[in-house]
Amino acid sequence: MYPNWILQRARLTPTRIALKFEQESWTFEQIKDISVKRAQQLIALGIKRKERVAILGPNHPQSVFMMYACMHLQCEMVMLNRKLSKGELQYQIQDSEVSVVLVDDEDLELLPEQTTFLLFSDVEKIKVQEISINEEWSLEQTTSIMYTSGTTGFPKGVRQTVGNHQASALSSVLNIGLSEDDVWLCAVPLFHISGFSILVRSLLYGNQVKLYKKFDKEEAIHDIAYGEVTHMSVVAFTLERILHGLEQQNLKASPRFKIILAGGGPVPVNYLERAKRLGLAVSQTYGMTETSSQTATLSYEDAFRKIGSAGKPLFFNQIKIANASGPKNEGEILIRGPHVTPGYIGRFSEKSATEDGWLHTGDIGYLDEEGYLFVIDRRSDLIISGGENIYPAEIENVLMSHDAIREAGVCGMADETWGEVPAAFVVLKYDVSKEQIKEFCLTRLAKYKVPKQIYFVQALPRNGSNKLLRRKLKELL
Amino acid sequence: MYPNWILQRARLTPTRIALKFEQESWTFEQIKDISVKRAQQLIALGIKRKERVAILGPNHPQSVFMMYACMHLQCEMVMLNRKLSKGELQYQIQDSEVSVVLVDDEDLELLPEQTTFLLFSDVEKIKVQEISINEEWSLEQTTSIMYTSGTTGFPKGVRQTVGNHQASALSSVLNIGLSEDDVWLCAVPLFHISGFSILVRSLLYGNQVKLYKKFDKEEAIHDIAYGEVTHMSVVAFTLERILHGLEQQNLKASPRFKIILAGGGPVPVNYLERAKRLGLAVSQTYGMTETSSQTATLSYEDAFRKIGSAGKPLFFNQIKIANASGPKNEGEILIRGPHVTPGYIGRFSEKSATEDGWLHTGDIGYLDEEGYLFVIDRRSDLIISGGENIYPAEIENVLMSHDAIREAGVCGMADETWGEVPAAFVVLKYDVSKEQIKEFCLTRLAKYKVPKQIYFVQALPRNGSNKLLRRKLKELL
Repeated sequence: MYPNWILQRARLTPTRIALKFEQESWTFEQIKDISVKRAQQLIALGIKRKERVAILGPNHPQSVFMMYACMHLQCEMVMLNRKLSKGELQYQIQDSEVSVVLVDDEDLELLPEQTTFLLFSDVEKIKVQEISINEEWSLEQTTSIMYTSGTTGFPKGVRQTVGNHQASALSSVLNIGLSEDDVWLCAVPLFHISGFSILVRSLLYGNQVKLYKKFDKEEAIHDIAYGEVTHMSVVAFTLERILHGLEQQNLKASPRFKIILAGGGPVPVNYLERAKRLGLAVSQTYGMTETSSQTATLSYEDAFRKIGSAGKPLFFNQIKIANASGPKNEGEILIRGPHVTPGYIGRFSEKSATEDGWLHTGDIGYLDEEGYLFVIDRRSDLIISGGENIYPAEIENVLMSHDAIREAGVCGMADETWGEVPAAFVVLKYDVSKEQIKEFCLTRLAKYKVPKQIYFVQALPRNGSNKLLRRKLKELL
Repeated sequence: MYPNWILQRARLTPTRIALKFEQESWTFEQIKDISVKRAQQLIALGIKRKERVAILGPNHPQSVFMMYACMHLQCEMVMLNRKLSKGELQYQIQDSEVSVVLVDDEDLELLPEQTTFLLFSDVEKIKVQEISINEEWSLEQTTSIMYTSGTTGFPKGVRQTVGNHQASALSSVLNIGLSEDDVWLCAVPLFHISGFSILVRSLLYGNQVKLYKKFDKEEAIHDIAYGEVTHMSVVAFTLERILHGLEQQNLKASPRFKIILAGGGPVPVNYLERAKRLGLAVSQTYGMTETSSQTATLSYEDAFRKIGSAGKPLFFNQIKIANASGPKNEGEILIRGPHVTPGYIGRFSEKSATEDGWLHTGDIGYLDEEGYLFVIDRRSDLIISGGENIYPAEIENVLMSHDAIREAGVCGMADETWGEVPAAFVVLKYDVSKEQIKEFCLTRLAKYKVPKQIYFVQALPRNGSNKLLRRKLKELL
């Protein structure tokens, strides 16, 4: 029996600022009042408690209030990614069998045809139906569902329970500490675990979130340099933009600023060195949707002693390496702990997320003699582009659905801005232009997944059993 | 599945100082090594995993190592109170059916005759038996058992599980924050929840404990004034001694010092004002053995705005008032949350600790309009003397076992040093001196429970159904 985080936080620290967005701010009491009202409006519109609903909206307070309203109703929230194509959203809406999509007016045009939806503005207008909000949540109840691509190319809906989120937030606080005047800058999407976990922490910790509609380099630099915020979550490529901005403007991080958590792959040494000169502490982290954010974090003191490492597990977490071999005993990274998802929904609901309690990440890595994790290869073929995970199989499936394409193979290609972007190798049945293929992809894939380069080849590299060798593709680049 | 705290902490921050005692200190790695060795020595001496054992020892590192050794073996530790009489210890040893008492050499003389015991020094000498230590604990497993007197006069053995201790420590960190350089001064007994919870927090938070064998005013003043420690748990009467000492020596609290948690009843306003002048932040708390320490805490910012309040519940906790009535809606204080004991052992093992998840404390209080708890009366008859709980019924039982005593009634009497001390009203069968009665008590009760004043009376105040009216006794004082 754990308290409803939103009610409890409003009870304990009602007058503290919970959320800032542009020129406005809200206390925990106000956030509670608005979200309870929204919950009662959702009920008036026929939403049932514990129902599964989807949410689609930008990073702004109305999305936060709608999420909290769903949490009051103990609904399972499917967090839709605004960058996806209509076809991709369609898949998730169908697979999750949500009763309705709660959609911000601004995002209505993103929805596929014939979707049952409720506009945020319609919810906000309706007369409330007075219902009582449950004071308690169980650790097992599902708070959020986020789709993550699998190696098969079919995205899987990952359950994140109250217990998962809570364990993650508590483990993190035991690692980086807590002061009541901490302020988290949230410029990552709320539909991703990187963003949503900032909201969860805010409710548990009682600290303020400064929300950006989207990442704004100038504003971020200002907030970091002038102590408006104390914490931020970034991917390496955002970090570089911040470093570059601070350098150009000859600014340093405010002494009030505590730490940047950098996820989504290792941070180049050059960035770490520049950050150090700017007085900016960077902690590298390793985590994923299935672990409700961070599972390991490298403390700043170790940043230079353990370059390339993702650090040690957080307090409640365990990490081990399966089938270790090679000079460093590398193998598949397995994770265990109360932050690990109990499983999937939809077409993968039968698939267990763990074996004997251990999540098999598919990532390859090793633990050094002091227990520091080094991730060598993210899920073998995974492409990480500006912090978004892209699975080659998903793009290949789309390419091969084109009439003119016989075979397709996709791999990551280095890119100065995004870290990596997808590149495609294609065997044609008949002539078609690269532009035609890109346009075809654009109607079916989020823009960031559309191959930036397409190469026509006679055959794809395959092994004896005809399995595509994506690593060989990289060598062709 | 949660990690063994000791192993995990040693893995994450092996080189941090875990414990300081007099001139010595130990890192988390060293504490882990010593406690694993002790665990293997206990096995060599025939102790089984998950067995129930008792521990009796002073506040020094060997006691800490022995407790951690028992935790490695997932033994249920009955924490014996060193201030008890042999008869009282005998009761707890029998009631808990422990296989053995692990006793510090220094405390051997405290043990009742015919107790099966192992001396710390014998454990430390024996050759280890190599066994593996369990990496994981379950939330439900019992870590410690502490006896607390009940209104019936028979002490009850309260279970404190891994989940209870963990929830308590995590709730507390969400309230008072955390820095890795926090140092807790522990001058309260380790066999009490006030002391043991400091060890638990240290393992979870990774912070240092500075352990005192017993409270030493001069040393405490030095540590607070010179920033050797950042946190301390006290009862009001200890707080006064610290204030007095700082004032006399014209010292102030170091800016590094963060907070004193003051439990065991309200802190007089005069103390709060003096503390403020000395730059010493005081947070009043309310808690008990059944809630694995704090259940509510008054933040320092509210200290003067809410004088006399024990604050708000910690994040995972709920408090409500049963059968509220009167001008302030006062009634019995009920507590709910993951920190509440699952129940008792021994003769009370059938008795449920909670009703419908709520612990009925027997304490009387109210919640003000902002949700702050005010405790009006601790368990109606409870006497709190220098932080120790004393139940009148227990003393009355002893008095009435004396041949010459027909009836006995006990209540608390104000005392400058201890806050309260017990006073007894006695109806005699035949003449006996007050000194004889005190000596009789001394062989059967801890010294602090022996009545400081004895009054001979003709009759005791009773109600219509002959129930002793202990409040009326107070009026007789």
